[in-house]
Amino acid sequence: MNGNVVPLKRGSAPATPSLAPILSLTQAAMNSVNQVILDRMQSEIPLIPALAGHLISGGGKRMRPMLTLAGAEVIGYQGTRHHKLAAAVEFIHTATLLHDDVVDGSETRRGKETANIVFGNPATVLVGDFLFSRAFELMVEDGSLKVLKILSSASAIIAQGEVDQLVSQRRIETSEERYLHIIGAKTAALFAAASRIAAVVAERGEEEERALDDYGRNLGVAFQLVDDAIDYDSSAAEMGKERGDDFREGKMTLPVILAYARGNEEERRFWRDAVAGFTNSDKDLAHAVELIRKHDTVAATRERARHFAQRACDALAIFPDSEARRAMVQAAQFAVARGY
Amino acid sequence: MNGNVVPLKRGSAPATPSLAPILSLTQAAMNSVNQVILDRMQSEIPLIPALAGHLISGGGKRMRPMLTLAGAEVIGYQGTRHHKLAAAVEFIHTATLLHDDVVDGSETRRGKETANIVFGNPATVLVGDFLFSRAFELMVEDGSLKVLKILSSASAIIAQGEVDQLVSQRRIETSEERYLHIIGAKTAALFAAASRIAAVVAERGEEEERALDDYGRNLGVAFQLVDDAIDYDSSAAEMGKERGDDFREGKMTLPVILAYARGNEEERRFWRDAVAGFTNSDKDLAHAVELIRKHDTVAATRERARHFAQRACDALAIFPDSEARRAMVQAAQFAVARGY
Repeated sequence: MNGNVVPLKRGSAPATPSLAPILSLTQAAMNSVNQVILDRMQSEIPLIPALAGHLISGGGKRMRPMLTLAGAEVIGYQGTRHHKLAAAVEFIHTATLLHDDVVDGSETRRGKETANIVFGNPATVLVGDFLFSRAFELMVEDGSLKVLKILSSASAIIAQGEVDQLVSQRRIETSEERYLHIIGAKTAALFAAASRIAAVVAERGEEEERALDDYGRNLGVAFQLVDDAIDYDSSAAEMGKERGDDFREGKMTLPVILAYARGNEEERRFWRDAVAGFTNSDKDLAHAVELIRKHDTVAATRERARHFAQRACDALAIFPDSEARRAMVQAAQFAVARGY
Repeated sequence: MNGNVVPLKRGSAPATPSLAPILSLTQAAMNSVNQVILDRMQSEIPLIPALAGHLISGGGKRMRPMLTLAGAEVIGYQGTRHHKLAAAVEFIHTATLLHDDVVDGSETRRGKETANIVFGNPATVLVGDFLFSRAFELMVEDGSLKVLKILSSASAIIAQGEVDQLVSQRRIETSEERYLHIIGAKTAALFAAASRIAAVVAERGEEEERALDDYGRNLGVAFQLVDDAIDYDSSAAEMGKERGDDFREGKMTLPVILAYARGNEEERRFWRDAVAGFTNSDKDLAHAVELIRKHDTVAATRERARHFAQRACDALAIFPDSEARRAMVQAAQFAVARGY
């Protein structure tokens, strides 16, 4: 252990942070994780691998299993137990994505038609259930009750976060505090759990577990904040995300929460109507983007994200300097630099 | 152990089989299970207990947790660990019902509006996910990896059975074999698992586990067959199930499979069109019921159900005669006598 401060500053990192170091750090193990994913999404019912594969092979970044793999590297775990668990994490994530797209009626994800559009809502719900069950089967095979506890608890928290988000949808009164609580549950809980389990399989102590949990959780919040910023950021149209989705769905994300808070009476009236769903044409979206630019709330959201990314990096300070730690720091820097 | 044959005959059972013995056998323990259910469906998000409670307090029979409780009685287990696990089983079942109703677009269940109608599809999908996660949390608290393995595997099988049923919907070529395979997965797997875990927590051997598994599995098949018969049985209108649902959804259940198999060319043409969804008016339903009556396929379906119920009872033969065993035999008899 040492008490290094891990700065998120330009000085100690390349000018353009990159995912390359973490990708190369985890590449060999990720091949093994991908093999588990491919093997275990099979079923005697051909629709299941077809639908699951549509999303799983659809160019996802495998961000969450990557956290498990990187966590194992940073603590120097030599085994391979975490490969199966990283696949379980990806299955839980995939199940929630499938259900999310049904819930939101989303039509595109990662630049492709969503599974619910291609295969219909019913099959998409059920294949999500299958992947979720399969995730638990993988964890049971590994046999760690502690990992099972961490991931079943995270799953319950994710579902609660999703319901909470649904309840907050089209509610202009959603505060920044409440929003952070929601993304802490719906996004950051799985990032935290994915990181933490690396320390569990390595049988490190509570301090290492907590450090990895903090890294994952803060990175998850930062990641979601930037995602939400990108949805209103005109320079980010190339990200593959359908811009303005959140606006049309009346989702209260931070760029909107801050624009509403900073707006004058007329602007607030616009936001109330827009969030309620009365004014959400393309022209309204353009006006929303204009107000967000006026009050600089995409930048403010990104600034918040930097704060959480910094906390993620500082959580790694208990680990000695290593290629793995530097890669994880750069991944956090990359997360907040996305979409510029 | 003894090798008694357990007959499913009138002679050894009351003329009208009843659930009363199994209800009274399990009543005290069921109160404790219900307390766990109520406690653990709570959440900081009020919509979650509201939606879950809509279904859970909606007059369900708690059939599956009852199997866990009755199984514990028949093997003489003295502890209470199975209460939490029985609640987990009910949560898994509730999650699948919520998702089923979304998948089928069902409007009523147990004579009430379904959760998807009252609360909408999005919340219903997500609360299903929450209950499913909660089920695993309960199992993790209990701490038996063997129970976790049995129930995670059953959950994956259920999801596959549901997808399989979806794929078979509106496909006239679905055979009796394939239908039995589907209901074995979507219904009987959880009945089997719910029973089996009683022997696991009691740390009985493989023989007892298998006997309870066989009882549950065969009872599950019998139960589903009778459910499917009732949907076409004019004398069963009082059962609270919306009659003709399966017909309108183009579900290939045994009464239809047999009526198609036994029908002449003109009748087969009718079934092909009906299952494909071209002819499913009330008048068509009336004609379907007429054909089913002509070929006596409700009775044939019930006869198949009796076969499986008999196998369920015979599986109990390894246990000594007891109040519990007699109650379980009568429950199987009741399952096939329902709706007359």
